[in-house]
Formats: sequence, structure tokens, C-alpha cells
Amino acid sequence: MQEKLTLMIPGPTPVPERVLNALSKHPIGHRSPEFQEIIQKTSELLKWLHQTEGDVLTITGSGTAAMEAGIINTLSKGDKVICGENGKFGERWIKVATAFGLDVITVKAKWGEPLNPKSFQEILENDKQIRAVIVTHSETSTGVINDLQTISKYVNSHENAIMIADCVTSIGACNVPMDAWGIDVIASGSQKGYMMPPGLSFVAMSEKAWLANKRSDLPKFYLDLELYKKTIIKDSSPFTPSVNLYFALEEALIMMKEEGLKSIFTRHKRHMNAIQESMKSIGLKLFAKDGYGSPSITSIIPSNIDAEILRKSVKNDFDILLAGGQDHLKGKIFRIGHLGFINDRDIITVVGAIEASMDKLGVLNKKLGTGISIAAKSLNRTVN
Amino acid sequence: MQEKLTLMIPGPTPVPERVLNALSKHPIGHRSPEFQEIIQKTSELLKWLHQTEGDVLTITGSGTAAMEAGIINTLSKGDKVICGENGKFGERWIKVATAFGLDVITVKAKWGEPLNPKSFQEILENDKQIRAVIVTHSETSTGVINDLQTISKYVNSHENAIMIADCVTSIGACNVPMDAWGIDVIASGSQKGYMMPPGLSFVAMSEKAWLANKRSDLPKFYLDLELYKKTIIKDSSPFTPSVNLYFALEEALIMMKEEGLKSIFTRHKRHMNAIQESMKSIGLKLFAKDGYGSPSITSIIPSNIDAEILRKSVKNDFDILLAGGQDHLKGKIFRIGHLGFINDRDIITVVGAIEASMDKLGVLNKKLGTGISIAAKSLNRTVN
Repeated sequence: MQEKLTLMIPGPTPVPERVLNALSKHPIGHRSPEFQEIIQKTSELLKWLHQTEGDVLTITGSGTAAMEAGIINTLSKGDKVICGENGKFGERWIKVATAFGLDVITVKAKWGEPLNPKSFQEILENDKQIRAVIVTHSETSTGVINDLQTISKYVNSHENAIMIADCVTSIGACNVPMDAWGIDVIASGSQKGYMMPPGLSFVAMSEKAWLANKRSDLPKFYLDLELYKKTIIKDSSPFTPSVNLYFALEEALIMMKEEGLKSIFTRHKRHMNAIQESMKSIGLKLFAKDGYGSPSITSIIPSNIDAEILRKSVKNDFDILLAGGQDHLKGKIFRIGHLGFINDRDIITVVGAIEASMDKLGVLNKKLGTGISIAAKSLNRTVN
Repeated sequence: MQEKLTLMIPGPTPVPERVLNALSKHPIGHRSPEFQEIIQKTSELLKWLHQTEGDVLTITGSGTAAMEAGIINTLSKGDKVICGENGKFGERWIKVATAFGLDVITVKAKWGEPLNPKSFQEILENDKQIRAVIVTHSETSTGVINDLQTISKYVNSHENAIMIADCVTSIGACNVPMDAWGIDVIASGSQKGYMMPPGLSFVAMSEKAWLANKRSDLPKFYLDLELYKKTIIKDSSPFTPSVNLYFALEEALIMMKEEGLKSIFTRHKRHMNAIQESMKSIGLKLFAKDGYGSPSITSIIPSNIDAEILRKSVKNDFDILLAGGQDHLKGKIFRIGHLGFINDRDIITVVGAIEASMDKLGVLNKKLGTGISIAAKSLNRTVN
């Protein structure tokens, strides 16, 4: 059925009516006092969301723009950096670092496995020249969450390195206390936990990141964060910002504040548990290593059918859009996004739709309803 | 009065309800066939708007991002370029070129005066090493239109140089036939003639620009146009695009197609004439040299009052937002944006509001109504 689509991909995520209504207001002048108020308010709420006293800057661009900004504003040509790679986004940050002439040491894990923090520790302890560690917290392509807290701890013991984290699918989904964990740069994008359409991205910068910025010599202009820092002090922006998406951002952040960080994190954890348990209960395997499932995305290996066939069946019959596997995982896995504006009904619904589609395709080896009942029981359990 | 603001600044410009309604639809997946259709359709319409057979690529970012993309994708470190400078945006492209290590020759004109095409010709004829000429077509900060056609002609006679043009406030306002004039790169932004909110920008690339791209060695990733070219062929994009602004873009381009290029250009010309004539009729001076007024923005020097006082009076009493002067022009000029979704009523209205405010402030030396009657007569005149 047209026009009744439900998004359960890892972004764009569903957008609340309140946010869509804010989005569609007539634009105002971006140099007006009215717009300054919006910048001031969203800046404050972004700090709250990142649990930081530092700056959180808003860029008109995608999450990749924010990550690139974090990298090119804190590093110089030839700098030695460690990039973690256990998925498509890890790969991407290596490409960015290489494009800007950084000297990249790669720490890999098999897709589906988490990065080993000890591997970072070892390199850091033996090389004082490392300038940054670049890691994807929640790897959207595989649904694996990496142990950012521990990796960050090792980076903090190093005298020269800063911690740069892609938190695109973890901010607003699980606890990422920037200051407490000592993360220096966090990049994120609007179409994820923020419950907004894509088009804005965010770079949080610690004091240490700004110190690193002073020696950074990589060429930049549109993504020169110093220009953003100079203007945010005056509740302004260096270039014409995406005014209507700021309206949406303000409303979305107000909604997040109303729900509260703890409740948001608990909701995502409950949904992750319910999806993981229900999928296993109908005989499907999880792609992420046990205990390393992302709070935002669950990747699933259908044992006896092409993942794309199942995914399309769910789309056609139930108007729920799931994500497929990327690159070599195409047809092998499908991914459920349970991120952002998702409630318990969505969880029950997607599990039911998957079960029903498997039944229709003749590949459900359990009693129809098994998944839903496990999901319901899981949702009823208290989570800390 | 709150919520009844009319924008008559040179961007953001007013947005039609049809476009706002498109903007506020629920997002869809950016890798879906439905979104591919939107990319395909908007690509075609963008080519129509640019009067080109070449690629027009859409970036999530501001007009500056598009200009930077045009520059860093066609040039290499140390390349000699000529930048035209007769306003704030001319200044900005010098900053971008300098930030990326280009060797910049500046051709200047006083703010308010147009660039002299002969100055470009002279340098080009005597230096075969010039790789690009970078010019702002309609200089938003001063309301001056530069003679891009003639400058482009000189660039086309040069064996190595390409023509890079900032057409942010000329595309969709006056005739800029990219292929016919031999322009190699055109940058523009959504919040201008496109009748959309800010957040998307566009880079059109000629075949010669793509040839230049092959030798370009400046570091880039988010703004690497090769990635955009590779994906647009598949009606896709390299990074998560601003989905809802694409909905708006599609609707806005359909509206532009319905009106037709010729009608759009005539409308802007009629409005420019009416504003220029009416402002002069009430004793105000135009900042742009006679014959070089932009079709999109008219800068006005109030003879006997601080421009900011007049501007604020118009805002407070009539809810019409005019733009002020930038940098050393603050308080000296105000700017009327007559760009994008502007009709004859808006023109009559803004002239009336300015007259009434001047009268209230005791600085109107003509009979109240003089400006409006001249504007009405001007609008009734046929324009070719």
C-alpha cells in the first residue's frame, strides 16, 4: 500500500509528526534574532545529549561530512593514526584518512566481530607518534557495537593521541558520555537517534581536540570547524544553515529531553533484546557476535532463504522497509533498524511481519506466533 | 505580528506551500527504487534549468560547499587561478582558493561596480599557465551582476583555463545558458531561485571540467565529485542525501518547469525594473552601477537615514524582512531580495512599506504613494 510505509532501516528513521510539522514551517532569516535563539537552544540541547561541556557544532551535510570534519580539523599531513575496521564505515574512515594523506595503521576484526581493544592498546604503548585513534562505535553495516569506552581509556593514557569516534548510530540510542569516557571527537547524523530526516550532522569537540586543531594543517574551508566555533559563540553559523532542518532539530531535541536520556537508552536496550530473542526463537541466526549486538541495528542471517527475498516479501506484504546486507553480505543478511522514534508496537509488528513472510515463503520451521510471543515476553521484562 | 513574516532578503527566499508540503512528508529509504526515481527526475530538471547536457550534481550542503567542490575537484596544488572580487562572495572564493594552496591572481572592482572583463582577457592572453577563472555572477553582497558571458568567452579562447562561476543568485533568475556560454562549473544553492529552504546545493560540470578533474590532486572526500558522478549514473548518491529536501526540490523544479525559463527570467527582470525605478523615484540611490543591477537583489543607499533604522522599521511595522549591508556597508545600504517565489504583489507591497516607513521616520521627501505608482507603471510595461 502506498504512503503507509514504516521505516525500520538504520536511517533514515521514522520522524514524529511534531518534527515534520516544525520542518514545514516557512523559513526565516538565518541572521535574525529569532534564528539565533534556535541555534542557542539546539547547541545547549546537543551538549546535554552528548553529555559534554565542550562544543557540539552543527554542519549542513551527512554523517560522513561530520566524520571528515573531525579528522581533517585535528590532524596534519603524514600524521600516524589507527583506524578500526570491522565493517563498511570503518572502511570509509580509512578512505577519508588516506585521501588526506594520513599514515594509517589498521586494526581489523572480521565483519560481525567486535574490534579488540587490546590491539589498540598494544600499538599505542609502543608508538608515541600516534596522533589519533578512529573508531566506529556502532557499526551500522554489521550491527556490531565496539567497546569504545575501553579503547578510549587506552587512548587517554597516550600522550599524543586523541579519540575520534563515529557515533552516528549510537548517540541517542545508548550511553555515550563524551566527557566521562574522554572521547575527543564525536560525529553523528540527524537521520538516526535524532528522529529527524537526514541533512544535518554534528561534530562534538573536546578541549584536547581544539588543541590538536591548532597544529592541524590539512586544507579545508566548508568543513573548517574553527569558522563554526567562531560563529557559534555568537549563536550564528559561518555558512547559510539548513534553516528548516534546524526547526526540526529543535523540536526533536525537545522531545528527547522530555523522554530523558535514561529512558531513551532503556527503550533501545529493550527493543534490541526483544528483536534478538525473537529472531533466535524462530531459528534465525544473529550476525553480530553474542554480547556485541548494537542497540540500534540487528543483523540477521536467514538460514534457509536469500535475505533479499525475505526482505522484499516483508516490504511488499507489510510495507515495512528493512535494510539489506552491503557488499559481500548482500543476500546473506538483512538488518532491522530499531533506532530513534520506535515504540514497542513497531517491535511486535516487525517480528510478526517477518514470521508471516517466512511462513508464506515456506521457510518458517517454528509455529507461527513463536517470535511474537518471545518478543512480547522480552518487552515485559525489566531492563537496567 | 508573529508568524506572518515575508522574506525579501537574498535567501532564504519565500517557499511555496506545495514545496513545504512536499518537504514535510515522511522520509523514505534513500536506497529505494522510489528515491531513485526522485534522483532521476531532479537530475533531468536540473539539467533543463542549467541549459546543459552535462552533469548537475546535488550536494547536501550550502552554496559554499558547492563552490568549494567546483574548485577542489578541478584544480591542483599551486595552480594559478584568477579570482574576480567585487563583493563578499568574491572575497570568499579567494579564501577557499588560498586555503587549498592555489596561486591566486585577483581582479578587483570597487564594491558596487562590475568586474571589467578586459582585465581577465589581458591576464589570460599573457599567461598560458592560468588553470581557472573564478567569478561570482550575481554578487549577493552588493546586488551587482558581472558580465559572465564575456568573461567566459575569453576563458574559452584560452587553452588551459576553465570557467568556474558562482551562480547562486543568478540561476533561476536570469538567463545562464551553461553550454552556450561555455561555462565549465556552475555552483548554486537551494534557498535562492529554487524557491526552497537552504540545505541543498548544486554543482554543474562540463566535459572540460571533468577533464580537469582527472589531473586534480587536492584532497577531498565528502566533496569528491567523482563519487557523486559514479553514483548519479545509478540514480543514487555516495552519502545519505537530505531526503526531505529532495522531496522539496522535485516539487520546486516541477513548478519552475510549469512556469518556464523565459517567464521566470521576465518576471525577475520586471521586478528588478520596478524596484529600481520606484526606489529612485522616492529619492533613494542605487548602490550598483547603472545597468549592472542584479535581477535578484537591489542594494539601496538611503540618503538621509541609517539603513539599519529604515530596515528595522519596515520589519517591525510591516513584517517584511530586508537584508542589511555587510561589513563596511552595514548601515550604509539595505538590500531587497526579489528572487524566487516573488509576485507583483510582493513588489508593490515592499515599495509601499519602504515609503510608509520613510514617511513615519520623517525622511520621505516625495509625496507618499510616489514609489508605488512608479512601481505599478513599471510592472505594467512589457519587458523582453
